[in-house]
Amino acid sequence: MQRKIFVRPAVEALEAYSPGLSITEIRERYGVDRVVKLASNENPLGVSPGALAALERAFGSVFRYPQSGSPRLAGAIAARHGVSPDCVVLGNGSDEIIDLLIRCLAEPGWHNVVTFKPCFSIYGIQSGLCGVELRAAPLREDFTFDWEALLELVDERTSLVFVTSPDNPSGYCPPARELAALSARLPEGAILALDEAYMDFAAYEDGDPEARLAEYSMLPRFKELRNIVILRTFSKSYGLAGLRLGYAMMPEDLAVYLNRARLPFSVNILAEAAGLAALEDEDFRLATMKAVEEGRKQLQWGLEDSGCRVWPSRANFLMFAPPVKAKLGGADLFEALLRRGVIVRGLKGYDLPEFFRVSVGRMDENLFFLDVLRELL
Amino acid sequence: MQRKIFVRPAVEALEAYSPGLSITEIRERYGVDRVVKLASNENPLGVSPGALAALERAFGSVFRYPQSGSPRLAGAIAARHGVSPDCVVLGNGSDEIIDLLIRCLAEPGWHNVVTFKPCFSIYGIQSGLCGVELRAAPLREDFTFDWEALLELVDERTSLVFVTSPDNPSGYCPPARELAALSARLPEGAILALDEAYMDFAAYEDGDPEARLAEYSMLPRFKELRNIVILRTFSKSYGLAGLRLGYAMMPEDLAVYLNRARLPFSVNILAEAAGLAALEDEDFRLATMKAVEEGRKQLQWGLEDSGCRVWPSRANFLMFAPPVKAKLGGADLFEALLRRGVIVRGLKGYDLPEFFRVSVGRMDENLFFLDVLRELL
Repeated sequence: MQRKIFVRPAVEALEAYSPGLSITEIRERYGVDRVVKLASNENPLGVSPGALAALERAFGSVFRYPQSGSPRLAGAIAARHGVSPDCVVLGNGSDEIIDLLIRCLAEPGWHNVVTFKPCFSIYGIQSGLCGVELRAAPLREDFTFDWEALLELVDERTSLVFVTSPDNPSGYCPPARELAALSARLPEGAILALDEAYMDFAAYEDGDPEARLAEYSMLPRFKELRNIVILRTFSKSYGLAGLRLGYAMMPEDLAVYLNRARLPFSVNILAEAAGLAALEDEDFRLATMKAVEEGRKQLQWGLEDSGCRVWPSRANFLMFAPPVKAKLGGADLFEALLRRGVIVRGLKGYDLPEFFRVSVGRMDENLFFLDVLRELL
Repeated sequence: MQRKIFVRPAVEALEAYSPGLSITEIRERYGVDRVVKLASNENPLGVSPGALAALERAFGSVFRYPQSGSPRLAGAIAARHGVSPDCVVLGNGSDEIIDLLIRCLAEPGWHNVVTFKPCFSIYGIQSGLCGVELRAAPLREDFTFDWEALLELVDERTSLVFVTSPDNPSGYCPPARELAALSARLPEGAILALDEAYMDFAAYEDGDPEARLAEYSMLPRFKELRNIVILRTFSKSYGLAGLRLGYAMMPEDLAVYLNRARLPFSVNILAEAAGLAALEDEDFRLATMKAVEEGRKQLQWGLEDSGCRVWPSRANFLMFAPPVKAKLGGADLFEALLRRGVIVRGLKGYDLPEFFRVSVGRMDENLFFLDVLRELL
């Protein structure tokens, strides 16, 4: 029996998310021994030792369902950030929380979601899936944020404004006072969702993890503002990307609905155990931030030395463009890097076909990448 | 600044999923030493040893993102069931796949979803969140399925029909030929989604894992029918509930859209590793099915011996009702069991306030439960 499958038009129109390539894929495809993956902004030091020990203790319990809402972990996060546990929502990565925000706040065919472009593709994919209009204001030429252009797109039907800070893929980090000013100018009913996935790397300086927190993060202003959501993740500075653990702090009267709309066991039991331990493993987080600060400088010098244009970054990655007169560029350079065992992120999916994003790796990985790149250019 | 949060009316109307209580919660609340949890249909034997070994090997890689779509695991599942890998969709538990089916197939405010009541609450919660009408035909008094009542609710706007087989909470398992007949009577465009989470326990008999597969599962008919989706899970017979790993087999031209609509990394990296190993650990799956078959008999005899009414079950749980003249019933009995360290599932959430569901545990757990229950009745 041949039947045609009817899916919703909004689903038919979806473009798939384009993830970074994996080490296994590249090894298999090109038969190279050493593969250095600097494509997904993963932790250069690997996994927190504290989290590893917790995984060892917890793995016998994976036949049990997790406790819905992971109250212990929500409590520990709340204590760490000095907010009420009732403000904390956990998710299967912050991706799930982005999706839930749109699903809870934006009425399909009525509300709109506003952001910059280029931006994290999940904002657009999930809006599309929800049948909600996405409006995107172009970034300035130098990848800084044009607030007036953003506000021009906002109207009384805007339910959410997404801003990534530090931004992906440029690494630009707007001052918190500008975000506070934006929040004050939004109409009643619009929520400003700040994706601070990379904030640890922006606030760190010279051994102090929060030296510049008030300058960049909206966390110190969380209690005074009623219309902001702050998204964070265990994927970057805590090294738990593969376990899928994100969280957000938001007004309690919004959190209660997200927790109700969320699939009851979306955070797995090992993510909860590892997350609790990672929060305690401050040495690892500090070492990560230090390694990223040093590696970022190393990469910036090396890239500039190869004639690349590099954008200033406060995240654990750098956006760069090869010199216009280089032997290779764009898709050809991306492919040539893969053949030599280097995975970076080509930014074609961000409508920047001549640009690349490289994650900060370990010293030896950064050097390997810089050496291969120099040869190819 | 006080701002009111506006959520969608569909979200405001949501009732939260009511999960089973955890062992920690009961220990803390009642100060009991021994807590036997027979509330969430978890695996009585714990975790597959093969999966445990795979987890140990994989811990060091949790700082990496998973490979989107988990192609290795999808391939292994396809090989196990003799279907094309392009038919397989993985999810963060089958819950995520249920949600994705509704999101991909049902246009909010236009389509409807049809099921029985009582049924798995996620069908209704996710339909509500999506703004899609849920229509539910009552089960017969004896908890068997009234297909005519179901079909009366189906019309040209029905995009999905959900049937749980074996059913939860009754354990009733309809013959596959009745499901095939149902699939043939659905209008073009409607998909029959069969949640076979508990099918391993229905098909097993006397050491043969698939003795009754053709009698109960729609898997042998998957290729000939174009309008069915079969949902399975690693939470039950594979003992991986806490890792959140479900999957479905569906027509390729539907799978491609679910994989596009799905959050790219919804299946965590340890779930993939453990799932691959669990598929190889056939000894564990067989031992589980055997333990469940024996424990189910033990519980049935014990419950009947205590004067309870017990419904015939082909799953890893039993639905029962205490005798009407017992000292305790309903919420009081539920509470008294908790105080004695026994967690079962009260079925108030299924509109069956006098009914209970008990999962098949280990022999000693089943005995402990039966002893406590006998005393209380």
